[in-house]
Amino acid sequence: MKNYKIAVLAGDGIGPEITAEAIKVLKVIEERNDVKFELLPALFGACAYFATGDAFPQATIDICDQADAILKGPIGLSHEESKKIPVEKQPERGALLPMRRRYNTYANFRPVSLPKSLAHFSPLKPEVIGEGIDLIMVRELVGGLYFGNKERGVNEQGQRYVRETLEYDEEQIRRIMHEAFKLAQKRRKLLHNIHKSNVLMSSVLWNEVMEEVAKDYPDVQVVNYLVDAAATALCLKPTQFDVMVMENMFGDILSDQGGGILGSLGLMPSACIGPDKAYYEPSHGSAPDIAGKNIANPYSMIGSVAMMLENSFDMADEAKNVWAAMQGVFGDGYSTADLSKPGSGVTMISTQEFGDKVVEKL
Amino acid sequence: MKNYKIAVLAGDGIGPEITAEAIKVLKVIEERNDVKFELLPALFGACAYFATGDAFPQATIDICDQADAILKGPIGLSHEESKKIPVEKQPERGALLPMRRRYNTYANFRPVSLPKSLAHFSPLKPEVIGEGIDLIMVRELVGGLYFGNKERGVNEQGQRYVRETLEYDEEQIRRIMHEAFKLAQKRRKLLHNIHKSNVLMSSVLWNEVMEEVAKDYPDVQVVNYLVDAAATALCLKPTQFDVMVMENMFGDILSDQGGGILGSLGLMPSACIGPDKAYYEPSHGSAPDIAGKNIANPYSMIGSVAMMLENSFDMADEAKNVWAAMQGVFGDGYSTADLSKPGSGVTMISTQEFGDKVVEKL
Ligand SMILES: CC(C)[C@H](C(=O)O)[C@@H](O)C(=O)O
Ligand SMILES: CC(C)[C@H](C(=O)O)[C@@H](O)C(=O)O
Repeated sequence: MKNYKIAVLAGDGIGPEITAEAIKVLKVIEERNDVKFELLPALFGACAYFATGDAFPQATIDICDQADAILKGPIGLSHEESKKIPVEKQPERGALLPMRRRYNTYANFRPVSLPKSLAHFSPLKPEVIGEGIDLIMVRELVGGLYFGNKERGVNEQGQRYVRETLEYDEEQIRRIMHEAFKLAQKRRKLLHNIHKSNVLMSSVLWNEVMEEVAKDYPDVQVVNYLVDAAATALCLKPTQFDVMVMENMFGDILSDQGGGILGSLGLMPSACIGPDKAYYEPSHGSAPDIAGKNIANPYSMIGSVAMMLENSFDMADEAKNVWAAMQGVFGDGYSTADLSKPGSGVTMISTQEFGDKVVEKL
Repeated sequence: MKNYKIAVLAGDGIGPEITAEAIKVLKVIEERNDVKFELLPALFGACAYFATGDAFPQATIDICDQADAILKGPIGLSHEESKKIPVEKQPERGALLPMRRRYNTYANFRPVSLPKSLAHFSPLKPEVIGEGIDLIMVRELVGGLYFGNKERGVNEQGQRYVRETLEYDEEQIRRIMHEAFKLAQKRRKLLHNIHKSNVLMSSVLWNEVMEEVAKDYPDVQVVNYLVDAAATALCLKPTQFDVMVMENMFGDILSDQGGGILGSLGLMPSACIGPDKAYYEPSHGSAPDIAGKNIANPYSMIGSVAMMLENSFDMADEAKNVWAAMQGVFGDGYSTADLSKPGSGVTMISTQEFGDKVVEKL
């Protein structure tokens, strides 16, 4: 029997609620496979800061270090609440970015996927969704502006200024390109390379390295898109995309636009993969306004479990079953509160009901 | 009689075609008002580079310097074509950015507007468009990554790298905030401040200065949005926005997403305003693939004329007439090729036909 340790960082806001549903799913998978999941809960984010003064405390680091994979809920506070914490201690700078840096999780996979049968959730017209949206954004996750040097000061004119750097070297670009090309090879052999080479010199290097790496994948067709044009195209013709690769900040913005075209960020799970460790998280925030109400959509968190099953535990079939179960629940005419308004022809279900129904289907 | 000099930079690709229609409109306005528009055509962009070796040649600079306003068409080459020109001579780096820098056009206004009656053009469902989308993005246009220091080299590991800087000082932020707050005061008194303060220190300063400036406009309600959340919200609920303010790169991406939710970048005019000079341009590129076919949508270019009438020549009423005429043509059931497929219940018209019909309505 395989034994896997999973660090479970439920996070802030809606984190604990949606994590509870993800754990239900893990239990089912465990029961019917020759596998044991040892769950190691730990504090991470604002909850950790309030308990220990540190958003990513040493105890949590220790647990993550020894875990085979990390399941991480959303973290963060509301705009107003976060002002009460020193900037560098805030959950994003104090926990999330250090996690990404520590495990060097440079490859972030964000599926943006909506089968035709669930087109009613999308703000886009059915004819735009066509046979369904099914793309994956591959986002570089440990470089660029996120991890650049940051300098704040007062200039000669007595003005406060901030200067921060966006930096990439060829090796950082090369390794994410290989991830993207490999994924494209397994899928439609189509890679959209997102850049801003008409302004950014980092994009000029990005494109150079992309072209070098492309030689190793002659069967993959590359289409170059300026990031701004990609933002237009994601609304107008999302079905043209299959695998998209982009630097850190572009990936942040476009992937959230991805949640927008699906109908909710609640449909956005993700995998953050480094050389030795991977963690899995919803792409969205902790939604403090709806926390504790049992109305959050656990799809993104359960989907992150599916990505963990496939990537960390080599259980691709069970991952497929999880996706199918979740889409099946929605396909049966149910909806969580983020995706539909009551009275729009669907039956509204709670966070827990969604989890229960997924478990039933599995 | 007022006499205004207008530098006319038709640009590349579809630029000349849509500029011709914009000029038709200017002629009508001239005929029925006590005003003379002296049109000063000049080369700008790739066409200028091929003719003179310089994308923004001195002759064009001279014309722009003496003009009361500049009407600028889209510029640029296809991805493949642009590789044939040295990076720093390419139309964007060689002409567009120098123009913005020269005239310090820090305030870029990009209306994203679609009345309910034209909801059929949008990829969004009619219920998402509701009573219509009517927002303006206020984009800082001469700071940030666009104008930062750019360094390319080889690091100690022998790896090529690029480092570029994103810099803002408080004065740069303050002046764009005043523009945004003033605009909000004239409209719905609602300002969405777009930032990424959980990662970027420049956004921390951005928000600080925003809060300072906000004190001068107590009647304006400020809503803070992370840029990624704004990208989601623009798809899910665009009607919540009225005035949005953001730094340069965010404005580039979100405004093109704006074109996406309207149905085409062809609906995106803009005004770029500096202390002493303003220029007006569509937000989109030169679309080399459809150049010369008489199918481009001149709305963005004629809309830029409307913005010029209002901002540079104090002719707000005529500007309104131009908007109404353009929307009237579409409202009569016509469409350009970017907005609809033939056979979708609209009558397809060419670039020139659109211009002619606008002139008829005026
Ligand atoms: C919370 C924030 C720092 C984070 C990011 O910007 O990467 C989030 O938006 C995401 O996309 O995972
Ligand atoms: C052409 C390009 C440099 C420009 C920009 O990025 O500003 C364009 O996309 C725009 O939005 O005006």
